[in-house]
Amino acid sequence: MSASFAAKARLADLAMFGGPPLFATPRPMGQLSAPPVDDFLARIRQACEDRCLTNNGPLARELERRLADFHQVPHCVAVANAGLGLSMLMRILAAGRRGRVIMPAYSFRGLPHFAAWAQQTPCFCDVDAHRHTLDPACVERAATADTSCILAVGSCHDAGDIAGLETVARRHDIPLVFDSVYRAGATADGRPAGSSGRAEVFSLHASKLINGFEGGYVTTHDPHLARLLRWQRNFCYPGPETLDLEDQVHVIGLNAKLNEFHAAMALSSLDHLDVVIARNRARLEAWRQALSGLPGLALPEYPPDQANPHQMPLLEVTPPWPLDRDAMVTLLRAEGAAIHAHYSPILPRAYSGGILPFPVPVAEGLAGRFLQLPAGDHVSSQDIAALGGLFRFLAEHGRAVAAHLAELKA
Amino acid sequence: MSASFAAKARLADLAMFGGPPLFATPRPMGQLSAPPVDDFLARIRQACEDRCLTNNGPLARELERRLADFHQVPHCVAVANAGLGLSMLMRILAAGRRGRVIMPAYSFRGLPHFAAWAQQTPCFCDVDAHRHTLDPACVERAATADTSCILAVGSCHDAGDIAGLETVARRHDIPLVFDSVYRAGATADGRPAGSSGRAEVFSLHASKLINGFEGGYVTTHDPHLARLLRWQRNFCYPGPETLDLEDQVHVIGLNAKLNEFHAAMALSSLDHLDVVIARNRARLEAWRQALSGLPGLALPEYPPDQANPHQMPLLEVTPPWPLDRDAMVTLLRAEGAAIHAHYSPILPRAYSGGILPFPVPVAEGLAGRFLQLPAGDHVSSQDIAALGGLFRFLAEHGRAVAAHLAELKA
Repeated sequence: MSASFAAKARLADLAMFGGPPLFATPRPMGQLSAPPVDDFLARIRQACEDRCLTNNGPLARELERRLADFHQVPHCVAVANAGLGLSMLMRILAAGRRGRVIMPAYSFRGLPHFAAWAQQTPCFCDVDAHRHTLDPACVERAATADTSCILAVGSCHDAGDIAGLETVARRHDIPLVFDSVYRAGATADGRPAGSSGRAEVFSLHASKLINGFEGGYVTTHDPHLARLLRWQRNFCYPGPETLDLEDQVHVIGLNAKLNEFHAAMALSSLDHLDVVIARNRARLEAWRQALSGLPGLALPEYPPDQANPHQMPLLEVTPPWPLDRDAMVTLLRAEGAAIHAHYSPILPRAYSGGILPFPVPVAEGLAGRFLQLPAGDHVSSQDIAALGGLFRFLAEHGRAVAAHLAELKA
Repeated sequence: MSASFAAKARLADLAMFGGPPLFATPRPMGQLSAPPVDDFLARIRQACEDRCLTNNGPLARELERRLADFHQVPHCVAVANAGLGLSMLMRILAAGRRGRVIMPAYSFRGLPHFAAWAQQTPCFCDVDAHRHTLDPACVERAATADTSCILAVGSCHDAGDIAGLETVARRHDIPLVFDSVYRAGATADGRPAGSSGRAEVFSLHASKLINGFEGGYVTTHDPHLARLLRWQRNFCYPGPETLDLEDQVHVIGLNAKLNEFHAAMALSSLDHLDVVIARNRARLEAWRQALSGLPGLALPEYPPDQANPHQMPLLEVTPPWPLDRDAMVTLLRAEGAAIHAHYSPILPRAYSGGILPFPVPVAEGLAGRFLQLPAGDHVSSQDIAALGGLFRFLAEHGRAVAAHLAELKA
């Protein structure tokens, strides 16, 4: 991909102020890696010829085996999407109780809804300022006899304090599960993500590293839990006679199977994962260059002992940068970067039915400072360099830009 | 398709007793109509090239328009599957209450689970002996102030007493919705299914008339309900500021979008629906011939004033037929007919968390008498004729077969 981008020389060149946008075609922030089309269409054609389109077909089973290997766990249960996987897990672990699920206050907007579908009340806790993941000390304070589950979320740059969370979970005898949708292809403690806690949940959405168009899966060491999930994802078919009675009382079935199409796409995506990750690394390097020497703009810190697939780079915006995060989002969107603020507002502000046992100052602060950068296979190094040029223009003229934005708003 | 089937001349020829099965490849009971593969692969290829795979893409929007036309309703909301569509509807209509959902005792095993996901308790009612659909008089008796919704289910041969149910629903001011997964392509009162009650829910599962591999949709006349469903199916994105506050309090979001792949498949399926229905009609005619002159084996009665796509033929097994329904299922399965008993056991026996306010003798009776016949695009007229031959053998030797089955069981 080669393109020339009009450099910004004066305020009126900014798209926000009437200039031509940097990108005529919006640059997204999802991975959107397309495996070679012919590759997965061939798998689909075969599935059609074999007349096996859904209901735990051969491709879904192959995908489960491949993913179990990839994550080095004994059990992988493919599901229709990660959100349903989380709801199913929370419902099983609540074992019939209407309890609380401890989750980070700074996370994906859907999480409290997934808990509500499982008849659980979200209980929001603060996060670590650098890792952006649940702070074990806060979980320790928030844990009660009503807590049915701790739902930790790996962030896109850091797995978080897994050992610390496991210690708290063990002490209180509360099941710990991980939303690991940004952790596919990542490691912590030398192991691939996927083998911590009672289970980890991953996504196969097109915006994620492994692209199944849509879909998700649960990894676990627990054969019993895997069996319950398989039962649950298919309407609790066959009947309860196939399981222990005490289990089936608490499990509510739904249609959450992964069909052959998504499995075909995800298998093709897995075949090309090394290429996708290598491209992400190259883009990250381009971001480092584009941001070098710009005080107040920073990428998050990547722990050197964790492999990271660099699917989603974040940008932190702080003084002395002359513009705040929201102004940056406004300006970048006008230029054709289809990005948004990261995890903002915090969950207790976005969802009214939860519990906030203590203030969450760290989460509040992070929610005002980070944005998601354009990312994935539809963003080139040239695109990133062009954004670097824009940033340099803003570094110089930021105060005038801020003043002009304020005028527009008034 | 041409095949020759070994006729059954003696008991030992039955597969159950060691003979070769009638069908080496199992004959299914789902529609499984495959639109021309190249047709929908072309749509998929385009979606990949356009980089729009999910999130309310052009194919999903086109499908919603086509289906709204097909059902002659103003609004169609595509969802990931019919079960999620039902759970979403029940949750919206409950408006935050933990109430009861009145549903037929004789229906699909998943229904009470879908109500439970919506925090509602299933309340099982009896059905009409001929139509197999909710009996309005029973609904009238079961309706209480706690009833959040009446979930009627159209059966595969009859829409049911829609007017009677609407009258009861109106009198008690309880929303009425329809599970219409077997009613796509059918009519009642001269209108296509899809425009009764507050909403109707359809399936795009491969086993249904319109094949999207997987998927579902909701039809409604209510623009407000359609708007809530669209909001709910996408994690309640964007935020509540886009809706009235009183609504968003009761709506819990999830990932229930229909992606472009399923939309592509369903669109291709819609293009060929006339052919599919014509083939179903020809198969029904073959069944009529295969069953003629066999007392105790009968197809259900199809109301002459309703069009029917004949997706799923049922078989009623009653005396003087010499074998009971369960024996017939056992024998047919052994012969390679991948069929099962229809809606058996009744839901109050299959699901422990519901309410059964009154006995349901009609449902109990039906659950012991019906089986689903092999159906859909992988069953030929020759297959049906071969089964007709088997039935004629059983009519003659039924008592000996029953005795032999009893010996095997002992």
